[in-house]
Amino acid sequence: MSKNLVTRSEDYSKWYNELVVKADLAENSGVRGCMVIKPYGYAIWEKMQAELDRMFKETGHQNAYFPLFVPKSMFEAEEKNAEGFAKECAIVTHYRLKNDPDKPGKLMVDPNAKLEEELIVRPTSEAIIWSTYKGWVQSYRDLPLLINQWANVVRWEMRTRLFLRTAEFLWQEGHTAHATKAEAVEESEKMMNVYADFAQNFMAIPVVKGIKTETERFAGAEETYCIEALMQDGKALQAGTSHFLGQNFAKAFDVKFATAEGKQEYVWGTSWGVSTRLMGALVMTHSDDQGLVLPPNLAPIQVVVVPIYKSDEQLVAISTEVAVLIAGLRKLNISVKFDDRTTQKPGFKFAEWELKGVPIRVAVGPKDLENGTFEIARRDTLTKETVLKDGIVTHISELLEKIQNDMFTKALNYRDSHITEVNNFEEFKAVLDSKAGFVSAHWDGTAATEEKIKELTKATIRCIPLNRVLETGSCVLTGETSIGRVLFAKAY
Amino acid sequence: MSKNLVTRSEDYSKWYNELVVKADLAENSGVRGCMVIKPYGYAIWEKMQAELDRMFKETGHQNAYFPLFVPKSMFEAEEKNAEGFAKECAIVTHYRLKNDPDKPGKLMVDPNAKLEEELIVRPTSEAIIWSTYKGWVQSYRDLPLLINQWANVVRWEMRTRLFLRTAEFLWQEGHTAHATKAEAVEESEKMMNVYADFAQNFMAIPVVKGIKTETERFAGAEETYCIEALMQDGKALQAGTSHFLGQNFAKAFDVKFATAEGKQEYVWGTSWGVSTRLMGALVMTHSDDQGLVLPPNLAPIQVVVVPIYKSDEQLVAISTEVAVLIAGLRKLNISVKFDDRTTQKPGFKFAEWELKGVPIRVAVGPKDLENGTFEIARRDTLTKETVLKDGIVTHISELLEKIQNDMFTKALNYRDSHITEVNNFEEFKAVLDSKAGFVSAHWDGTAATEEKIKELTKATIRCIPLNRVLETGSCVLTGETSIGRVLFAKAY
Repeated sequence: MSKNLVTRSEDYSKWYNELVVKADLAENSGVRGCMVIKPYGYAIWEKMQAELDRMFKETGHQNAYFPLFVPKSMFEAEEKNAEGFAKECAIVTHYRLKNDPDKPGKLMVDPNAKLEEELIVRPTSEAIIWSTYKGWVQSYRDLPLLINQWANVVRWEMRTRLFLRTAEFLWQEGHTAHATKAEAVEESEKMMNVYADFAQNFMAIPVVKGIKTETERFAGAEETYCIEALMQDGKALQAGTSHFLGQNFAKAFDVKFATAEGKQEYVWGTSWGVSTRLMGALVMTHSDDQGLVLPPNLAPIQVVVVPIYKSDEQLVAISTEVAVLIAGLRKLNISVKFDDRTTQKPGFKFAEWELKGVPIRVAVGPKDLENGTFEIARRDTLTKETVLKDGIVTHISELLEKIQNDMFTKALNYRDSHITEVNNFEEFKAVLDSKAGFVSAHWDGTAATEEKIKELTKATIRCIPLNRVLETGSCVLTGETSIGRVLFAKAY
Repeated sequence: MSKNLVTRSEDYSKWYNELVVKADLAENSGVRGCMVIKPYGYAIWEKMQAELDRMFKETGHQNAYFPLFVPKSMFEAEEKNAEGFAKECAIVTHYRLKNDPDKPGKLMVDPNAKLEEELIVRPTSEAIIWSTYKGWVQSYRDLPLLINQWANVVRWEMRTRLFLRTAEFLWQEGHTAHATKAEAVEESEKMMNVYADFAQNFMAIPVVKGIKTETERFAGAEETYCIEALMQDGKALQAGTSHFLGQNFAKAFDVKFATAEGKQEYVWGTSWGVSTRLMGALVMTHSDDQGLVLPPNLAPIQVVVVPIYKSDEQLVAISTEVAVLIAGLRKLNISVKFDDRTTQKPGFKFAEWELKGVPIRVAVGPKDLENGTFEIARRDTLTKETVLKDGIVTHISELLEKIQNDMFTKALNYRDSHITEVNNFEEFKAVLDSKAGFVSAHWDGTAATEEKIKELTKATIRCIPLNRVLETGSCVLTGETSIGRVLFAKAY
């Protein structure tokens, strides 16, 4: 197995693209901007889905499924939302192909099968879902509605990158409806916290919780909560958003309810989502020049066992030892693969599983058999140790936990050492040009300044951190009064 | 809760439509032909998915994800497949909306954003997947490829019905590639058997396994295996299909491999799928005039507990007893709901859970408290019994198994009593006009006769049963020689 990965320091962007393909996570398809998620990548996404789905259900949500298509008139009902997505919509206009009379064996769009009304392939589902909620909500007894959907969506992006920005992607989108503003705000915050917990405990990615500025807010929302992560190249990545929609969609789709007192009021809404983009964040946070580094809590294979032998006899003896080990690990729900392929040498296998980021590799050879030991290698630190077989199952189980924690700590240290407070625009630019990361700076609160800084530096306001200290200061660009620092960064 | 269901004998079709909506399984959306799958219906689909997914993985398959869109040139590469689906395709022609200059606040398709090549919304994914497999297969070592995808697909049907026939539906589609014809045929048969096991053991639906005639075969397949079920109105429903694709797609997409001897050969393929159509089969096989009847193995709620009380004191005492029962049931992974709503009377709750098909209802009132008993009602038989609380958890657990088995047996008896052998066309028509069901008859093996019988009776050949006895006979229509009976029926 020739890895031939470009290193991160040589070309971070190329390293990422190559790694995603070579580690069998995903590849570009024959359809512009759309990716194929390969089995190994999809297995990681399935683990993410399972954990998130559990967390959503534990917080009272149910899954449902709404149509892929949104009729144009429905799409445009909430004007800001429509305006926000209009420029990147795939549009279905016809419903039939016919034989092309000029080209035998070829098909053409049948001009007689034009739709009366065009259908938009959902870029997000607020419109179709709120048009449905109108029929589901009559009284306060019908509220809250706490619904989630796992689905594909399409946004016609011009420049695409595997996982990070694709024309079609997979995601979940929660859409909830509440009787009061306070409840809806609470829900938006709750789901941001669910995302943050998931990122930290499963992806081993530390995130900053915050709110978006008006410029960066979701089209149609009154407030957008977000979690922001930092990649190894010092660029930020928005890892999840949760929107307080106010009554915007309720008004656009006339969703009212009778209060306990019999008054008619508009419903309050939220929506929240994370997508296959998280796969990109996972790769870029932890992986190294040898390949993927997967956190044990999301690794499809947590432990790989590679036998080292010269004779069939040795292989039989090793296999017997390994069978005991595997049975012990599986009893603890640890996923383990015995790589007993006869077509490949151990060195090839080591490189392959390193590339694929399996957290722990166990090697066992004739000498281990004699000594009653196994050789254990950690993927995250690339270190090895020799361990007695007595108690090895417990050792591996604890080591998986340790790796999960160590990966988080490492990412946290990197992130924390890449939040830099600056107090003037020279410092601001200098930090972006050197180590990058989050730049914590005062801002005068205007969209004009935000835009100007973006023009000058390509950095945007990633968020107004929820835990920021309120302090009077001067805007880093204009010198105008500011009430607290916000986080800027260049971003994916 | 007013159920107001039309009865099956009054209007079977209307009964089905009303039941699907009133039991909160699904409803029509504001998008022509597309449905909304509501949380209760989606919870059943999730249970189906979980079991099928487990069965696919146990038989060596992995999940992956391929693009929603298929470029026209790719779509038309396998001609028979393209021809089969061309008339029911949703086609994306544009990628941007813009403000309509004539209608303030409205959007229109931007004529400057026309795609160079139209994109077909996948009606099935053979084309996009085989175009990908070309890059994945070089040598015999890369085979077999055993891949499954959970996805939405779109077929522009003109007459739609909830679950049974919708423009968009959810399904899984397996797509496999093999080195030999024998292996691919074995795979097709294996997956038909997986579907049959699932239908029988989880859905409690007996099925006939068979192969389709050439007329009814999947477009692009060399053989289509199927499982056919029988609904309570005597109409058949195709519940799953598994196709042996020969080398058709390998040739269309040039997917070759080097054999162990170094020869270049085309790969052999299969594809197989089941869809949300199974939800329709589940409803129509078991449900009655009171509502849904769900088999315990797929019921989102297996046991509902309804307290009957006059005072708060009684409710407290009942709740204490119920808490013990619930804890016991949950320990056995039985899903149970305690319906302690104070806004509804027991009679209302009984009717609601009957409508929703919960297999077992437990009621407990003051008298039960005194006697140390619970009242247990079976949804499938609508019978009640009073049971001592000692050993009730085991009793309920066993009863759930018994209900599952009884539902299958009932459906099997119905099905078996609705397979009628006929030996002339008068009998053939008479059976279809009276009790319907499957008509087992000799057929001369020609598409012309098949077509003629369909014209005359609306019955089609559902399948050539795999277990049929080879016997010489005379075709029921033409009198020509036949080598064995096939099953005809009117079908969904």
